[in-house]
Formats: sequence, C-alpha cells, structure tokens
Amino acid sequence: MKLITFTREGISTIGAIVNEEVVDLHIAYRTLLQQEGKIRAQEIADAFVPADMTGFLQGGKETIELAKKAVDFALTNKQVGDIKLVHALNTVKVGAPVPKPGKIFAVGHNYKEHILEMGRQLPSHPVLFAKFGNTVIGPEDDIPFYPVSDQLDYEAEFAFVIGKRAKNVSEEDALDYVAGYAVANDVTYRDIQRRTLQWLQGKTVDGSLPMGPWLITADEIADPQTLEMVLTVNGEERQRTNTANQVFSVKHLVAFLSNLATLEPGDIVITGTPGGVIQAMEPQVWLKDGDVVRVEIDQVGVLENTVRTVKGE
Amino acid sequence: MKLITFTREGISTIGAIVNEEVVDLHIAYRTLLQQEGKIRAQEIADAFVPADMTGFLQGGKETIELAKKAVDFALTNKQVGDIKLVHALNTVKVGAPVPKPGKIFAVGHNYKEHILEMGRQLPSHPVLFAKFGNTVIGPEDDIPFYPVSDQLDYEAEFAFVIGKRAKNVSEEDALDYVAGYAVANDVTYRDIQRRTLQWLQGKTVDGSLPMGPWLITADEIADPQTLEMVLTVNGEERQRTNTANQVFSVKHLVAFLSNLATLEPGDIVITGTPGGVIQAMEPQVWLKDGDVVRVEIDQVGVLENTVRTVKGE
Repeated sequence: MKLITFTREGISTIGAIVNEEVVDLHIAYRTLLQQEGKIRAQEIADAFVPADMTGFLQGGKETIELAKKAVDFALTNKQVGDIKLVHALNTVKVGAPVPKPGKIFAVGHNYKEHILEMGRQLPSHPVLFAKFGNTVIGPEDDIPFYPVSDQLDYEAEFAFVIGKRAKNVSEEDALDYVAGYAVANDVTYRDIQRRTLQWLQGKTVDGSLPMGPWLITADEIADPQTLEMVLTVNGEERQRTNTANQVFSVKHLVAFLSNLATLEPGDIVITGTPGGVIQAMEPQVWLKDGDVVRVEIDQVGVLENTVRTVKGE
Repeated sequence: MKLITFTREGISTIGAIVNEEVVDLHIAYRTLLQQEGKIRAQEIADAFVPADMTGFLQGGKETIELAKKAVDFALTNKQVGDIKLVHALNTVKVGAPVPKPGKIFAVGHNYKEHILEMGRQLPSHPVLFAKFGNTVIGPEDDIPFYPVSDQLDYEAEFAFVIGKRAKNVSEEDALDYVAGYAVANDVTYRDIQRRTLQWLQGKTVDGSLPMGPWLITADEIADPQTLEMVLTVNGEERQRTNTANQVFSVKHLVAFLSNLATLEPGDIVITGTPGGVIQAMEPQVWLKDGDVVRVEIDQVGVLENTVRTVKGE
C-alpha cells in the first residue's frame, strides 16, 4: 500500500493511494463496520484504524490488514449515503506521511563509493545525528529558506519508518520492524551545520525534511538494498546512487539503533546521502528561491519541492 | 508552583506539590467547576487543565492561573465526596515532569571556568546536540546501565522547559517563553559518544535523562543565572558550579534556538555541564551498579537516582 496523510476541508487523516484516487482509510473502515451492523463502528475504527499515522502504525500488521479490507470495500463503495470513502487525488492536500515522528535518526557517511572517492576509510559504526519533528514537511509543501544562512543544500535520502516497537532486535529479524519506506530530502544549512562540531543546528531548521509523497509498505519492496536514487535540481542531475552502495543497510541500522534506543512505531530513519551535494561542488552554487529539488527512488516514489525564501520576520 | 507528573493506581496525571502533599490539578479543577455548578465540568477541565504536562503547558499562563485556583480550592477541600483532590506525597509515584517532550536540545561546552581551565577558547555559538524522548526518566526511577559500554558518566544539568510557542524571539522577551526549570542529569556512555564525531548515539540510550523531581514555574526563579549546582556520587562531590558561569544564558539560548526551530510547549533544553565528569578524571572510575548520583540546584530542587545494571537480554 501507498499510505499517505492528507488534509481535506481542514481535517487531517490517513489514506491509501490507489491509481489516482485516495481511499480515506478511517472513514472506509468505519463505514465497512457500519455495513456489517456494528453499533460501535466509530469506537472500533478509532481503536483499530485511527485517523493519524502514528496511531495507525502502532496498530501494526493487524491494522494494515484491516486497512486493506477497507480499501477493497471502498473501491466498490466509493460513496455510501452522503459519505465519500474515496477522493480524487487532486482534491486533497497530501502532507508528510508521518507528520509527527517521535524520533528522526539520520545517518552520515553511508555510501561506499562516495567515501572511497573522498579517500576516506569506511566507518566502523554508523555516524548518527538528529533532526526534530519541526523539520517535517510534505510533498506539496515548499522548502522554506530562512534568512539565517546563504548556504542551503540538499541531500537525497532513502527513509524507513518503524512499524513495531524494537529493542535489541537482530539483523535477521530487523525488517519485520520496518513499516515501510519513503523518499526524503535532508535539507541542510551548511555553514550552520559546520560552525560547531555537532551538526544538529544546521540540520533541524524548520521545514528542512521534506518527505513523501507516501509511505510504501514494506511488503512492496522485496529488497531495500537494490534501489536506484537520483536527485535533480531544476532538472539537472546532481546525485545518483543505489542503496546497494550503503555501508550500513536498513537491517543493520534497525539492529544497531535498537541496541541503543527503543524504537517506536512512527520513528523515522533517513539512511544517508551519496556524493554530489553542493558543499562538495566547485564553485558552490547554493539553492535559491524557486529552485526545484526532485528526489526519485526506484519502486518508492518521487518527491519534488520548490525552495521559497522566507522574508525576514 | 512545583509541577509534577505522577502516577497513582495506574493512572498518570499532573499535580502540584504543596508541602509534602500532591494536589491533583486536573481533578481539583474539575471538582471546583462542579462545585460552581458547571454541567460540562469534565470537558472544561479537559480543555483548560488537562491531565498531561504537555497539554497543560500548551494552555500557557491561562492554564497556570486556573491551576493556582484549583490548588487553593483543593487545600481547603482535600476530599469531596469520595474523590481525593490531595494525596500524601509518599502514596504516589513521581515521574519525569515532562514525560513526552517534543524536542530535547542539549548544550555542550557552556561553563566558562571549565572551558578556560581546559585551555580552550569560549565558543562563538552554542554547541547543540540532541537526546530523544526515550531517554526521559523520573526522580524515583533507577538509571538503567545497559551492557553496551563500560563507560557510564554523569553530567549535572540545569534544564528549562518551553511554555509558549517560540519563533524568532528576542533575548529581551525570551524568559516569557520559559514555563519553568528542573534538575537533570545528562547520563552519557562516553566511548559510544566518542566513537564517531557526532555525539548522538552515546547520548540517547534509553533512560539516560533523569529529570525532576518537579518543574518549578518560572515565576519562582527571579534570575536563572544565579543558581549553584552541585553533583555528588555516593555523597562525594564531583561537580560544582553556578549558572552565572554559563557562556550562553537561558535568555540567549531561547533566542538562539527559536531563530532556527520553532520551540513548542514541553520542549526541553538542558543547558550544559561544568567540569568534573568522569571522562576528565585520572583514573577514570566509571559509574557502576548501585552508585547514587545526586544533583542539587539552588532554588530548583534535588534529583537523586541510583544506577542499576540491566542484565543482558
């Protein structure tokens, strides 16, 4: 399934994209229950197919199975009474799939080719840093460019989202804890990132983690270490790699992280970026107002956002 | 007010400590409204004096004023019918004041004396790193010592909690955005912190941020830059400083952070630790099972936790 968080008439809820349509999963499941004669349909739907993505993911595989039934029902019952179960994609606003993640772990130096071409040794452990939830924006949002720096850069990232509480998980079992995958862009203010040894301040500026357009459920990606990823700016290719080149795979990262911290449904891990960032270009032509940054990951999706300068406040 | 999050009979809620008693703020306010004849007392209490700390802080000064009225009411009406508004402190479990913070910003290298004695220059900008919400434990919890490292260290920290959404706040206005202060201990696995350039992985191990015992509201601290802070291990003094020695004050940090990220009610900032950590001792005698780490901050409170080894899982 392609899971999304979307807004319609001011209400945020979750859906599944099927062709060019959006199934409202919560409403579809509630309606299905009503059709089955369940009097407490609303309460059961709130419990098992809630309208927010973190709650949905907390429901685990049981919830995903119920959501699939809701999709099947909705596709043959697009409207029941005056309730719409399905919307045209262009009539809703699609937001970030997980609008309020608990944790966002980011991985640095995780593509072999790029590390070796820079003459560095492969790291013995993942380099981890954080972004906070204020960074998350969706596929239809602009990337805000705040006047705190001139040096705005992109980083194409393959993201995964945790679907089950994970502590001390083995690599062997690790993929069972992944709900799905998404495209992300780890937008970075380079001079702010570098002005102290710790990168956080250049990484957690508001709106600096476009993500989406959807969360593709893990069952649809046979092997997460085989995916081509390409980033373009205004159509010009800047980054290209394949997740086969990752030093630390999704499996390894789940195991490694869960050994340190309990991972929760809705936690996000962005798994690193390859060479080709502006930081490493000569000359450095930083992102500017109007630039269109597009990240495509094979089998996962395309995320495209426009940079918009925020006027001094 | 000394605001706490506490658990009683399996229910977590918020309270205010008055002498050795705990006023249940949510129940006290609901009961006050009932006594005033409000039919929708429950709904109004849920809206204005909710039972969770983040919700409470989102209510801002309005909620704090209502909570004060609830305290006054409860102290003269400790039980109404079979509803207890006030509990003996030793009959409840006190948890971390903000159990689910959105962001936890930590500041490194923020005490002048220690930086100068190490022969370093004062930093031009705050060094910022992150901890995630999985680290938060309360004053009655043990510090779990996971078998991922031998090098467990303490860091006494003066913490503040945001009480109002803050973006581009000036230093002049900054303290208006602080809900209150607390004692914290930035427990750190040193070898894990140092094995890559980014500190996050040694900083965000489960249970590595004891905090409490309460959040003392900002109106009770006339000047946050005048507070003596002492850390002892098993009664032996290890760290001592005064917040007057901070390179970057609370005011400065609120302004600085709010220029990068929108701060939200319930966000926590731990403002750095002075010299005297085990990392800098010769020989390094790391924390071990049974050690009692106590942090006291003048006018704020005392936080004492015992280290407990977690058996291999």
